[in-house]
Amino acid sequence: MDGPNPMRVILVVGCTQTGMLDGLSAAGNAPELLQHTPAADAEIVEYGRPICAPVTPVSPTGCPTPAVITRAVREMIDFDLLVVDAGLAADTAAPTLALGGRPGTDIREPIAVPNASALFKRARSLGRAQPDDAITIGESIPGGTTTALGVMTALGEPYGVSSSLPTNPVERKRNVVAMGLERSNIGPGDTAPDPLAAIRLMGDPVIAVVSGIVVGARETGARVTLAGGTQMLAVAAVIRHLGRTDELALATTRYVHEDETVDLESSAASLGLCLSVTDPGFERTDHQGLSAYHRGVGKEGVGMGGALRLATRNGVTMADVRDRTVTCYERLIDDQGP
Amino acid sequence: MDGPNPMRVILVVGCTQTGMLDGLSAAGNAPELLQHTPAADAEIVEYGRPICAPVTPVSPTGCPTPAVITRAVREMIDFDLLVVDAGLAADTAAPTLALGGRPGTDIREPIAVPNASALFKRARSLGRAQPDDAITIGESIPGGTTTALGVMTALGEPYGVSSSLPTNPVERKRNVVAMGLERSNIGPGDTAPDPLAAIRLMGDPVIAVVSGIVVGARETGARVTLAGGTQMLAVAAVIRHLGRTDELALATTRYVHEDETVDLESSAASLGLCLSVTDPGFERTDHQGLSAYHRGVGKEGVGMGGALRLATRNGVTMADVRDRTVTCYERLIDDQGP
Repeated sequence: MDGPNPMRVILVVGCTQTGMLDGLSAAGNAPELLQHTPAADAEIVEYGRPICAPVTPVSPTGCPTPAVITRAVREMIDFDLLVVDAGLAADTAAPTLALGGRPGTDIREPIAVPNASALFKRARSLGRAQPDDAITIGESIPGGTTTALGVMTALGEPYGVSSSLPTNPVERKRNVVAMGLERSNIGPGDTAPDPLAAIRLMGDPVIAVVSGIVVGARETGARVTLAGGTQMLAVAAVIRHLGRTDELALATTRYVHEDETVDLESSAASLGLCLSVTDPGFERTDHQGLSAYHRGVGKEGVGMGGALRLATRNGVTMADVRDRTVTCYERLIDDQGP
Repeated sequence: MDGPNPMRVILVVGCTQTGMLDGLSAAGNAPELLQHTPAADAEIVEYGRPICAPVTPVSPTGCPTPAVITRAVREMIDFDLLVVDAGLAADTAAPTLALGGRPGTDIREPIAVPNASALFKRARSLGRAQPDDAITIGESIPGGTTTALGVMTALGEPYGVSSSLPTNPVERKRNVVAMGLERSNIGPGDTAPDPLAAIRLMGDPVIAVVSGIVVGARETGARVTLAGGTQMLAVAAVIRHLGRTDELALATTRYVHEDETVDLESSAASLGLCLSVTDPGFERTDHQGLSAYHRGVGKEGVGMGGALRLATRNGVTMADVRDRTVTCYERLIDDQGP
């Protein structure tokens, strides 16, 4: 290594009451366990398996959390990991940097993230302090696409959102967002000049923290890759509404790209994002759990798209990624026992 | 990598009021800044420099914190790092696993670590949960050799303690410990059957947490290397007084080994520790800051001895370690500016 840290992935984790609503997320196979998903995701990327979190996040169809793919890449290229706790609802045994955040409420309440501005500010300081020339930033928060839709609607941005479920419950999300706007006493686009208010009323702590880190890192001149799908579009929208024209990359997966409920290319273009799409080719495995990605389950999250991009840039083939992902997945399943 | 994590260094950090007493420690050049030293040490090993902690820990003679050597090794062999917060008094921007500890009091108070048993218990669970076949565990806590002496005296163990100062203020330490015993209403050896009481009355939160992690990790069969000097002798004494006969290695530096105030070989032997001593040979550099180690400043800490052992085992020469350490040191000094 020449500099102190050539590759760092920042994973921002948190929870909301919104994410506990039925039918919004594939991140966990039982609503009462959903709040452990980001804690388990952090442990999987850090240690290779959940070591304290009482769940192995898989969708109802057995599709593993994208944390498994991010972990597989980490085992091959050994990037540094910084987990930032934006507001977890459950303990994690992964080392985290806590920013004083708490789980978000249900966005159908008047206020979704009471301390959104303070969180953004602390995250911006953290972003400024990062020593790296380049960062890749991902997220894990159940129900995150719904709060992303909330923020984008409050900002008056037209972008659709993807889903970790094969059939996007987009009407349900829109209904939740519509109720949230009403209870927050705003209409679509009303907070366009004040994106932190959009997060406070309709967002989640992860969007607040990712946005802050990105702004701070850009202030030092670091290159920033937003690793994810439509939640990262919401982050980009926040940053543009702050009046910032920074160069930003969006690294996501083919599975989001193919999702017909979101026009990723035009959304990325109009937000001024340099889009890169990776295809891990899980349909080429005969692995039941992973091939679910090809059927539209999971799709993205936990920095998966960004990790795959780092893999490619470091000469790792997608065939190698698939092999290692199967190894990582089997380790998880073995741990679960019979 | 074959398994999930072949090399992990666990760094346990904390503070005590004992460590703020004048003249006990070289860990920082001003008493009011001492409490930031473990926070800065964690940032140096994680990021290569302090990124938020407002200090660059150097001794009054300009000798850098051993964190610089541990960092240098990390840049060469890229071990995984887990920082455990046993009770920091100042924020760190390094990601940490917090165990609900608080800074210890002044051991001249009746109680030094009120929640020593709870801390030990949580640390033991963490040690049990670690997925690694082998762990190396180090510490950073100002004044840690004084609290180590406190614990060993309470246990009735005769071992001496080293110092980060070239002239060990051993009489001052003994006086502090004697006052502590009196205020805790015990005599030497009185807590021999109850080592957690020894920590509670006369120790620090780092000893509680390191001891717990070691016991938990050994319960899973993991190999454990205690990385450090006399503070790790105190940990070993605690573990033996718990009635455990586990195989344990102690990896430290030549600078502790040469310290005449402690007979490291016989201490290690009587505690049943497999001793390994590394010599980074800093006298061969003409580097003012590093050659201070050869004059007995710093000596050990922040996992230095364990990191050097990992380096050797991974084919890295001490000449390479010296070169990289100079690079890391210059980076710190450049950051400080004129």
